[in-house]
Parts: sequence; C-alpha cells; structure tokens
Amino acid sequence: MQLRMTIDELAEFIDREFPQVADQFAIDRLAPMEIDLRLKVDHRHLRPGGTVSGPSMFTLADCAIYLAILGMIGPRALAVTTNASFDFMRKPAANTDLVAKTRLLKLGRSLAVGDALLYSVGQEAPVARASMTYAIPPEKSAE
Amino acid sequence: MQLRMTIDELAEFIDREFPQVADQFAIDRLAPMEIDLRLKVDHRHLRPGGTVSGPSMFTLADCAIYLAILGMIGPRALAVTTNASFDFMRKPAANTDLVAKTRLLKLGRSLAVGDALLYSVGQEAPVARASMTYAIPPEKSAE
Amino acid sequence: MQLRMTIDELAEFIDREFPQVADQFAIDRLAPMEIDLRLKVDHRHLRPGGTVSGPSMFTLADCAIYLAILGMIGPRALAVTTNASFDFMRKPAANTDLVAKTRLLKLGRSLAVGDALLYSVGQEAPVARASMTYAIPPEKSAE
Amino acid sequence: MQLRMTIDELAEFIDREFPQVADQFAIDRLAPMEIDLRLKVDHRHLRPGGTVSGPSMFTLADCAIYLAILGMIGPRALAVTTNASFDFMRKPAANTDLVAKTRLLKLGRSLAVGDALLYSVGQEAPVARASMTYAIPPEKSAE
Repeated sequence: MQLRMTIDELAEFIDREFPQVADQFAIDRLAPMEIDLRLKVDHRHLRPGGTVSGPSMFTLADCAIYLAILGMIGPRALAVTTNASFDFMRKPAANTDLVAKTRLLKLGRSLAVGDALLYSVGQEAPVARASMTYAIPPEKSAE
Repeated sequence: MQLRMTIDELAEFIDREFPQVADQFAIDRLAPMEIDLRLKVDHRHLRPGGTVSGPSMFTLADCAIYLAILGMIGPRALAVTTNASFDFMRKPAANTDLVAKTRLLKLGRSLAVGDALLYSVGQEAPVARASMTYAIPPEKSAE
Repeated sequence: MQLRMTIDELAEFIDREFPQVADQFAIDRLAPMEIDLRLKVDHRHLRPGGTVSGPSMFTLADCAIYLAILGMIGPRALAVTTNASFDFMRKPAANTDLVAKTRLLKLGRSLAVGDALLYSVGQEAPVARASMTYAIPPEKSAE
Repeated sequence: MQLRMTIDELAEFIDREFPQVADQFAIDRLAPMEIDLRLKVDHRHLRPGGTVSGPSMFTLADCAIYLAILGMIGPRALAVTTNASFDFMRKPAANTDLVAKTRLLKLGRSLAVGDALLYSVGQEAPVARASMTYAIPPEKSAE
C-alpha cells in the first residue's frame, strides 16, 4: 500500500478545505498507513488548570485518522466518522503540544478503522487512546 | 436515589465553575439519575454544511453526563472522564439545537457510568449515541 | 417501521441456522426496533463464583441486537458485527437468567446500530451496557 | 517498570485459578507491559464457516490484558473488567490459532488500561482491535 499524497499536499488540502482549523495542526510525519499529527496547543484548547480539553483531544484524533485515510486514498469526498472510542488515561501536560501517533488498521472499500495514542510532547506515557471508524462513500473524486 | 441539586443550583454551578461554556447550555429537564441538556447551537458548533461538529457533540454528551452525576452527588470535586464511546448515526439538522437525553446507569463510590442519545430538536431519530465513564475522587466537598 | 418476522419465525430461524446456541436463548418480547432476549443461564455461562461470564454477556448482547435487526429486515444474509462497546457495571446475580433489553437506534442500508441493557432477572439495576454496529451486506434474500 | 512474574509462573497461575480455560491458551511472549497470548483454536471456538467466534475473541483479549496486568503486579486479587471496546475488521482464518499482541497503556493504582491487536497466525493484517479497562481492588495479596 502506497501513499497517494505527500505531507505538503495534505497540508494544502487542510488549508483549502478546513481553513478554520488549519492553523491548529502540524503534520510531523507521514508514512503508508501512519501519521503523526500535532495539535499546536493554545488557549482555545485548554480547560481550567491549563490542560488540553477532551473535545480538543477528540478533534486531534479525528483529524489524525481522517488525514491518514486521505493520505492513502487521495483527496476524495469526505469520509464520515461513524464510531469513536476513547480512553483518557493521564492529564495532558499544561501548555504543551499534543501529538497523535496514528495508524490505520483497516482500509476497506466502505469502512476504515484507525487508532491513535496521544502524547504530550516530551513525555513517554500516553495521555489518551482513541480508535475511530469511518464510512467511505462510493468513489467519486473530489477533483 | 434522590437529587441533591435543583436545576437552578446546577445552572449556577456551571455559571461559576465553567463561565466559558455556561452560555452554550440549557438544562431542559432534571430528574433522579436523568437530565436533558440542550446545546444552544450557534456558529461555533457548526462544521461546513451547517451541521453540528463532532467535538461539539462530544462536549454536549460529556457535560450532560457530568451534570447528571453532580445533580446526584452534589457540587463535589471534579470527576474525571476515563472512557467515552460514540456512535454517530445521522447528520444533525442544520442550525438546530441538539438535546442530550441522558441517564446514569451506575453511580458507584469510585466509578459512574452514563449514556445519552443526542437529538436534533424536533426530530424523532437520534443523531448520536454516547456512553461515558467517570472516576469519582474520594469525597471532599468542594464547598 | 414494521416487523417482518414474528417471535416464532425468529425462534425457528435460530433453531435452523444456529442449532448450537438455540437452546440457550428465549425471546421474551419482540416489537418494532426492540427485543428482549433472555439467556437461560446454566453452568456453561458461569465463571468461578457463580456469576455470568463476560463472553456469555457478549454473546447475549450480540445475538439480541442481531435478532432485532433480522426481525426488521427479514431472514437475509448475515450482517457482520463491526464494532462492540461494553460497560460492565455490576456483578450478575448467581445462577439467574440474564435479559438483554435491546433497541435498534439506526437501521440504514449498510449499517445498523443497536444498544442493550443487561439485567439479572428480578433486579432493577443493569449489570452491563452494550452497543454494537453491524455491516449489512447488499440485499440478496436468504430465501 | 519490571515484571513480577515469569511466563512459567503466569502459566501455573492460570492452571490453578482457571483450570477450565487453561488448556486453550499459550503465552508466546512476555515483556514488561506486553504479552502475546495465543488461543489454540479448536472446534469450541469456531462459528459456522470455520472462523473464530466473537465471544472467543472477547475471551482472548480479556485474558491477554488481564495476564499482562498480573505479570506486572503479581498474583493479586482479581481485577474486574469495567469497559471493553472492539473493532472487528476481518474474518479470522479458518482453523488457525489467533494471537493477541497486547500492551498495557496505563497501570494505575485503581485503573489499568490495555489494548490488543488480534492476528490469525501467519497473517499480516489484524482481524480485530480490542481495548479494555480493569478496576484494580485495593492491595491485599492473593497468596
């Protein structure tokens, strides 16, 4: 299985299709069936105490797995999240970027499944585990 | 099992402890082990196409189950979300409030479990199902 | 939405297609999008201490939601379980039947979602919560 | 973090405490926070068509994560499964052993979280993903 998009192409896609969140993310690494997506944590992502909020972690994991799929199938019509499962295990470090180390476990014609471990940058133990399923609509290229 | 807080007390608690989100929610109904929490949908909750975003649905379900717990145990130190599971089943209606019809299934000394069905107001079929687990810290009153 | 099968037709279907488990289950109630399926607990379902084992609860929830789908779409080619999520909340009563009170939340063309609360017969608080997703293959009647 | 039990000690523990399932499992590998547990698939684990049943996969994942915890904390009083989440992604190979490649993600005082990928031996793509949470009772040695 090979990538159909480069990091630059994925980043450009986010800029164009999701301008409202594009500045929040950086793609640290891209490989076949894998991506490391980083949330550039700022005040919008924090909850009282300075740690990253649950919805921000949801957004990070959802975008990471979504982009891992796009990297493999190309810039096609939107896949839809149908299931999400989270374990929140530790408090994220305050005011620290969060990275989702993500892998696709299945990339079928109609369903894709991926999971991610979320880490506060510089820490060894994951703060959260996420897995998500996406329904992939029948192929019609977005271009 | 009886409520330890009224709707007004819960609403006041949100105003005081979570001022940044207090204006987004309305408590439509409160009963022992149950709550209907409504997300007053505005542009902040929408994704392209006008439907409510996944992270907004996460926030709604998380707050709803959290408040259902507080209603039963009183305004104690924060419970922490340890697990969350979602099924996203239908597209929410555009520009329409979303209600989480929520029930607590377990309220133990150290763990609480609740689930919710999320509905676009006025529609019969749920848009999402959520279940969450919270770790309850040993009792020390927040007051 | 209407039922396409009666309790007797569903029971007959189980006898024919799943003879190895047919004697373990009884359909206590069937309604559109709902079913109460009872596990007739015997020594095969127990773990040390006399309570019902996790895998037995998995089997009960899986069969219950599966039969709720069949009741609505008729005896078609097998739907496949793609996702399952469980909260185990209380110890089941020893040597007591377990009932899965089950509802379908979505019955789409390609995906169905249902959830169930599992109760030890005669007890008020649920022992477990389950939700499951099924992929429904394109229609070709099994008859 | 170091192991407190060897493979032999874990295998002996299973023989003694769970004689009814002991012959179904083999520990292929044990490392700090990791275990590879193999289900020696026979007719008891199969469903029509010769593939491994869902409940058998549940049992395998549950035992694998449970043993990974025991390996780290020693043969203490039973931890209880409180949450389980599964993605079933591919049909297991017929009549082939199934291995759960398992890692602990959190080993706290009161909660432990682990996940596993399940593989048909000799195949590259996982058939299922599982994550589970265990409540660990306050320490009192089982010996």
